[in-house]
Amino acid sequence: MNTTATSAHETPVLNVGLLGAGTVGSQVAHVLLTRGDELALRSGVRLRLCGIAVRDTAAPRDVELPAELLTTDADAVIDAADVVVELTGGIEPTRKRVLRALQAGTSVITGNKALLAESGRQLQDAAGASGAQLSYEAAVAGAIPIVRPMRDSLAGDRVERFLGIMNGTTNFVLDQMDTTGAAFEDALAEAQRLGYAEADPTADVEGHDAAAKTAVLASLAFHSSYTIEDVHCEGITGVTAEDVAAAREAGYVIKLLSVGERCGDGVNLRVNPVMIPREHVLGGVHGAYNAVFVEAAAAGSLMFYGQGAGGEPTASAVLGDLVSAARAIALGAQGIPLADYAALPAVSMDDVTTRLAVTLAVTDRLGVLARLAQVFADHGVSISTMQQSEDPRVTGTSLLRLVTHSGRHADLMATVEALRSLPVVRDVVSVTPVETGE
Amino acid sequence: MNTTATSAHETPVLNVGLLGAGTVGSQVAHVLLTRGDELALRSGVRLRLCGIAVRDTAAPRDVELPAELLTTDADAVIDAADVVVELTGGIEPTRKRVLRALQAGTSVITGNKALLAESGRQLQDAAGASGAQLSYEAAVAGAIPIVRPMRDSLAGDRVERFLGIMNGTTNFVLDQMDTTGAAFEDALAEAQRLGYAEADPTADVEGHDAAAKTAVLASLAFHSSYTIEDVHCEGITGVTAEDVAAAREAGYVIKLLSVGERCGDGVNLRVNPVMIPREHVLGGVHGAYNAVFVEAAAAGSLMFYGQGAGGEPTASAVLGDLVSAARAIALGAQGIPLADYAALPAVSMDDVTTRLAVTLAVTDRLGVLARLAQVFADHGVSISTMQQSEDPRVTGTSLLRLVTHSGRHADLMATVEALRSLPVVRDVVSVTPVETGE
Repeated sequence: MNTTATSAHETPVLNVGLLGAGTVGSQVAHVLLTRGDELALRSGVRLRLCGIAVRDTAAPRDVELPAELLTTDADAVIDAADVVVELTGGIEPTRKRVLRALQAGTSVITGNKALLAESGRQLQDAAGASGAQLSYEAAVAGAIPIVRPMRDSLAGDRVERFLGIMNGTTNFVLDQMDTTGAAFEDALAEAQRLGYAEADPTADVEGHDAAAKTAVLASLAFHSSYTIEDVHCEGITGVTAEDVAAAREAGYVIKLLSVGERCGDGVNLRVNPVMIPREHVLGGVHGAYNAVFVEAAAAGSLMFYGQGAGGEPTASAVLGDLVSAARAIALGAQGIPLADYAALPAVSMDDVTTRLAVTLAVTDRLGVLARLAQVFADHGVSISTMQQSEDPRVTGTSLLRLVTHSGRHADLMATVEALRSLPVVRDVVSVTPVETGE
Repeated sequence: MNTTATSAHETPVLNVGLLGAGTVGSQVAHVLLTRGDELALRSGVRLRLCGIAVRDTAAPRDVELPAELLTTDADAVIDAADVVVELTGGIEPTRKRVLRALQAGTSVITGNKALLAESGRQLQDAAGASGAQLSYEAAVAGAIPIVRPMRDSLAGDRVERFLGIMNGTTNFVLDQMDTTGAAFEDALAEAQRLGYAEADPTADVEGHDAAAKTAVLASLAFHSSYTIEDVHCEGITGVTAEDVAAAREAGYVIKLLSVGERCGDGVNLRVNPVMIPREHVLGGVHGAYNAVFVEAAAAGSLMFYGQGAGGEPTASAVLGDLVSAARAIALGAQGIPLADYAALPAVSMDDVTTRLAVTLAVTDRLGVLARLAQVFADHGVSISTMQQSEDPRVTGTSLLRLVTHSGRHADLMATVEALRSLPVVRDVVSVTPVETGE
């Protein structure tokens, strides 16, 4: 740390090195360059932007940045900095750069959920060894303060589970499907048109983005180290307009939920489209908004709600981390190493207790219901509700919508597979877990 | 700080002195005595309860506490402690005790909103001078992490305003009135029967508790120092079943709102019963729950929701502060002094822009509406909606429910006073501000 203060009465100066000048990065740079006085009053430190590492110094940017700060030499920016803000994304060479900073005792602020979900433990260990701080409020649910409350405010409590809507793109798409009756492809196209989805929406719609955030948040919530590999992940590409309409009719709404919950002696982590009751607080999260619902032993139910993405909201989270880090550095504090003392294993979906909503297309003839009921009974799974209607698509076929009672996920899925093999079952139209939120 | 660590490999021990062993205090003591190992793993420090100061060592308690820790000598507990947890409440002698600790460089965790709202600046200054930490997550909205997010997560942003439901007792009473049609007195009696209201409910129903929390939260949000004197405060004792029913009919719900908002070159702080749209997120906060809605320039809209009171939830907030403080002390960090560099003055209600819902009992005869309309026009106030019905209580009288357009609060109130003096106005039945949440 090469903070410079020539006298006790002068505000110390902290050199901030910025990696990346995309939407969020250029917003952060803009605030540092234009609102430095205010930030100095808040942090007790003058934050001096000492360099901005970019791939192409001549590329066009959202905000004009001083040419003399731009460089393609990321290592030089890191080595000159007292604190590094990493907003480049990706795994390599970002990991090497973040490690270079942390190993030198330089604190790092990052919004890189993919890197944290893959190498979080390695980065935490490097920070712990050198006394540097590693902060990443922007990595989970954008501007919503959830990382810090999970790490600090609930530090004396026991988190039982969290349920989150942590990807704004998929929530926008599902909300569009719910409110307009649109098909998935049309809702996605609308999201792309409005800038809520990228040209290549894979990371969002396949659930990878939400899965990375789930691993990061679960590591904090359960004092363990998880990677994205520990998260069961299903996207929303298979959700149809019919699924959404059927859920609506039954008083539910389909959301891509990120769940971390204690399960036996371990923790189950999953991201999948589920039906939740429309009146549940998460059912009221519309558009590209995010929300995280947390249940803790003593605190009870908590909810955090806000914008999960966007340049300005994400920059707010980065700047909050930066001002906090600056205060701490100025006061000579080391970073707080995060222990994963609990080391709760990630348990598979098989052992999770859940309920399934299943839609079957069945031959419309006598005795069919009895055959189906027998399959459920054979697997020890009981049915909560059932509704039959004619299949508008095929004559002589009925649509049967069932919701099971709670059961072991593997047993419920085995039941579905057994149903699929019945000659009277023409098709398993959809299988959606039901989250009651209780 | 007399943390003892005999070797680098031993977990350092931190002496925790507890002041008060009421509902929250005995819960905190219980966790420290029974879950010490887990807390040590989280904080890297062993938290050793070194003494519990109480008024009467023989009094019955919610949780049995070791007799050898109980003492009536608060100063002895403070002087033996590395960190003090103050849960006695009240202003004196609590202030002297908290100052004694802070001046000695001993960090303090408190849930005492009344003390903070009266002497927050003095306590912050004492902490800043000695390098001690002053933490008070439990003082605002119980278990909801709002103090830390406001202080740290939003440190790089600009808070425009917050709207909060910060008193569970009054929210329970108003929610009962809304859902059952009960009168205030009956709803309050029900709250007392269920333990949501105290035998003497004055501090809650008159808004004093919410006003203290508003001053504490606003000081953080606006980087200024406010006391309870800066908060315009009206309670809910004047809210009638008729007001609640009329609001419901118009699509609104009456809530006791705590508001801090930028207003010209200052900040207006107020606690009063207002009508908010039923579909606003704060309209859906039922029972004794609390919620705080925050609007920040970059982060946009954020909401924090959870239990605002109760022994266990409040203990969760206290323990979160305690673990954080312990980590910081173990790492040699000083407390982060809070600057009130902005020093935004508290501005009176007069200059706030608001809308009013007014119910008038008027003589039922020709020309009355024209007279009323003239008064509005004379004050430059325009009417948004108006509804007339017969007054069921007095023949020959009509009830007129008006909602004004936005205007300066003083102008709106002057209009109401002018209406009151008209001979055709028999009574101003109710005046309730409308908060659109926009």
